[in-house]
Amino acid sequence: MGGIFMISRTRLQQQLADLQDITAPGKGINRLAFTDADWQGRAYLMGLMREAGMELREDAFGNVIGHVKGADESLPAVMFGSHGDSVPEGGNFDGIVGILAAIETVRSMQEDGFTPQRPLEVVLFLCEESSRFSAATLGSRAMRGELSHDDLLRLHDKEGHTLYEVLKSRHLAPDHIESARYTRPLRAFLELHIEQGKVLEHEGLPIGLVTGIAAPTRFYVNFHGSADHSGATPMNLRHDGLCAASEAVLAVEREASSYTEAPVVGTVGILQVTPGVMNVIPGEVRIGVDIRSISAEAKDAVEQAVRQDIEAIAERRQLTYDIEPVSKEQPARMDAALVDLLEETAKELAIPCRRMMSGAGHDSMHWADYAPTAMLFIPCRAGISHNPAEFAKLEDIVRGTELLSAAVRKLASD
Amino acid sequence: MGGIFMISRTRLQQQLADLQDITAPGKGINRLAFTDADWQGRAYLMGLMREAGMELREDAFGNVIGHVKGADESLPAVMFGSHGDSVPEGGNFDGIVGILAAIETVRSMQEDGFTPQRPLEVVLFLCEESSRFSAATLGSRAMRGELSHDDLLRLHDKEGHTLYEVLKSRHLAPDHIESARYTRPLRAFLELHIEQGKVLEHEGLPIGLVTGIAAPTRFYVNFHGSADHSGATPMNLRHDGLCAASEAVLAVEREASSYTEAPVVGTVGILQVTPGVMNVIPGEVRIGVDIRSISAEAKDAVEQAVRQDIEAIAERRQLTYDIEPVSKEQPARMDAALVDLLEETAKELAIPCRRMMSGAGHDSMHWADYAPTAMLFIPCRAGISHNPAEFAKLEDIVRGTELLSAAVRKLASD
Repeated sequence: MGGIFMISRTRLQQQLADLQDITAPGKGINRLAFTDADWQGRAYLMGLMREAGMELREDAFGNVIGHVKGADESLPAVMFGSHGDSVPEGGNFDGIVGILAAIETVRSMQEDGFTPQRPLEVVLFLCEESSRFSAATLGSRAMRGELSHDDLLRLHDKEGHTLYEVLKSRHLAPDHIESARYTRPLRAFLELHIEQGKVLEHEGLPIGLVTGIAAPTRFYVNFHGSADHSGATPMNLRHDGLCAASEAVLAVEREASSYTEAPVVGTVGILQVTPGVMNVIPGEVRIGVDIRSISAEAKDAVEQAVRQDIEAIAERRQLTYDIEPVSKEQPARMDAALVDLLEETAKELAIPCRRMMSGAGHDSMHWADYAPTAMLFIPCRAGISHNPAEFAKLEDIVRGTELLSAAVRKLASD
Repeated sequence: MGGIFMISRTRLQQQLADLQDITAPGKGINRLAFTDADWQGRAYLMGLMREAGMELREDAFGNVIGHVKGADESLPAVMFGSHGDSVPEGGNFDGIVGILAAIETVRSMQEDGFTPQRPLEVVLFLCEESSRFSAATLGSRAMRGELSHDDLLRLHDKEGHTLYEVLKSRHLAPDHIESARYTRPLRAFLELHIEQGKVLEHEGLPIGLVTGIAAPTRFYVNFHGSADHSGATPMNLRHDGLCAASEAVLAVEREASSYTEAPVVGTVGILQVTPGVMNVIPGEVRIGVDIRSISAEAKDAVEQAVRQDIEAIAERRQLTYDIEPVSKEQPARMDAALVDLLEETAKELAIPCRRMMSGAGHDSMHWADYAPTAMLFIPCRAGISHNPAEFAKLEDIVRGTELLSAAVRKLASD
């Protein structure tokens, strides 16, 4: 199989190699959203989109939408794509395989002389990773009208630059952010992505059909201890912010691990100590908590348990704290009929697959309440992602692209 | 009492006010060693020393020694002083009260027409705080010949500047660091300092006579976990470096608290997470451990217990770690006869006092094996130090200076 469309293995390989070189210095891939490297990557991908014959438009947030004319432009379109940014010291596959597969899908149609009945919209989302602004999928949020002018002024990076300023510096239109809202009717939304987990590799399967996406609840906790001298303050007179934070880190781990009714993951990925020197007991300590589940109930239950643990820790240690909410997303269900269509298509192409949940958040979750939405996963080595060791086999990328292409052709013609 | 010498309350008050203004921007006092603010403070103090009639010399490390001629220059000298640098966001009293008291002691002699029999050496130590180079009392070490050229190349600040480079940038002589070694015979070494603890305030006493100084054992622990995606990695497949580090933080607290044979304090003041973002499980986490006791045995026992705990944590969590030793100082005993002399002198001045141990390290600990050494403590509010809220009453500073002056006059004439 696989010869039915002109999915070019060589082209995908070359494009992956090109993107490998578009990165800020450092280990792995560094294309943090809106940085120079991200902008170079975006320009490169826009070039590929134009070569594939798409007509491009950019919205106020910088998302790029490539339009392919359908025989009947009045029909609801089929949208597919992914993101181009990376975490710091990330890999070359997260996001990238999805947008390259989308572009290759259109290019192969062009080469095959295939004209879709419906229009197609290939979307390159901006700022999917939360690494820079501590909030994920901002491009999708902008397109769904969920990002306000106030949000742009509130969200900021480690250097204190607001998202508003950063958009301005890229000559985008933060003052007209509401114009980024996407309003065209859609027949379907599809995204191909690496799994970022170990399930497919473990089962030796090249494709996962996502049935639901776990969404994160995120918040910061700031512990306000007492920054005393580390030599002269007896152990029983301390109010050590880091000891409190350490207990909170372990509470997040314990509560997520011990919840049994649905899988939940809880992570503290950020911990900052002030002043952070050898001879001062930490006074101010800030942690960033991320809790996810495919069950909203499970996620809320773990969040409540963690909040109660933190309250108890602070009371026992006689220090204060405050909590800053960052985001609270609802888990998203994929469209059953669309998953069925993908499964049938995989069967026709003789590609083995399984249904599964996504533990990671994706742009797709913002489209599930707008259009029938589904995702395709391909395996990545040892489940490693957001890491320079991230790797997906070219063979799996090609197979995933073939399945995406076949599904898009069906949807575009129905 | 207190009128026997011309200890000028007004002058001390003015000098404290002047130094309050010599700081880099930020909360409290910021005169991190060898920064511009530290250098301005040093220049200001050198000016006071000159005004008090001292002849100044600077050693290869930048320590400043102010000489007061004795009637018999061949006699062993009396040395006294303290340091001028601060921690980040520190207070205006740590170190400063000691060097101002020392200068005022000389100035009051000048005004009283008192000529010492022995020469006096007032010393302004550089880089006492470990905040910049993660090792304390570097000025004293240099003067004791314990700082090698290799050490200067090894020690570095957060920005990666080596101590060698920093000394060069101040036009000091790191290539001749051995020339900083102090070789003059000393009759005694004295240092006045704020307590940085709550004992004196609690007992309502204006003076503490230090009988021993607890010295720190310091090391870094680097945990090497696995930086996986925080959404897609189930709890049971994680090797979270921050969870391991959090257990280690609590182990340091637990082992120091539970050791009963002698007081021990254990602190993790530094914790750094890489990559430190919401959506990545922490891979690399570095902690800085500081363990202190006035008993070398107690300190070693707690260090061993912590190391065993860390080994067990890493084994259970299936991740690796390494330990970088930073320093391991021996606790220092003060000279019994010198403490007796200070106690008698306090009695003569009708200043209530008590004997006590110092939990914090001080320059004095490096002089205990060179000359009879002792320290005077004055209270500080709520025991708070290394903090913008650090505060000592002017009245206590004046009384401490009077006791120091009286003791120096006795020692200078015996």
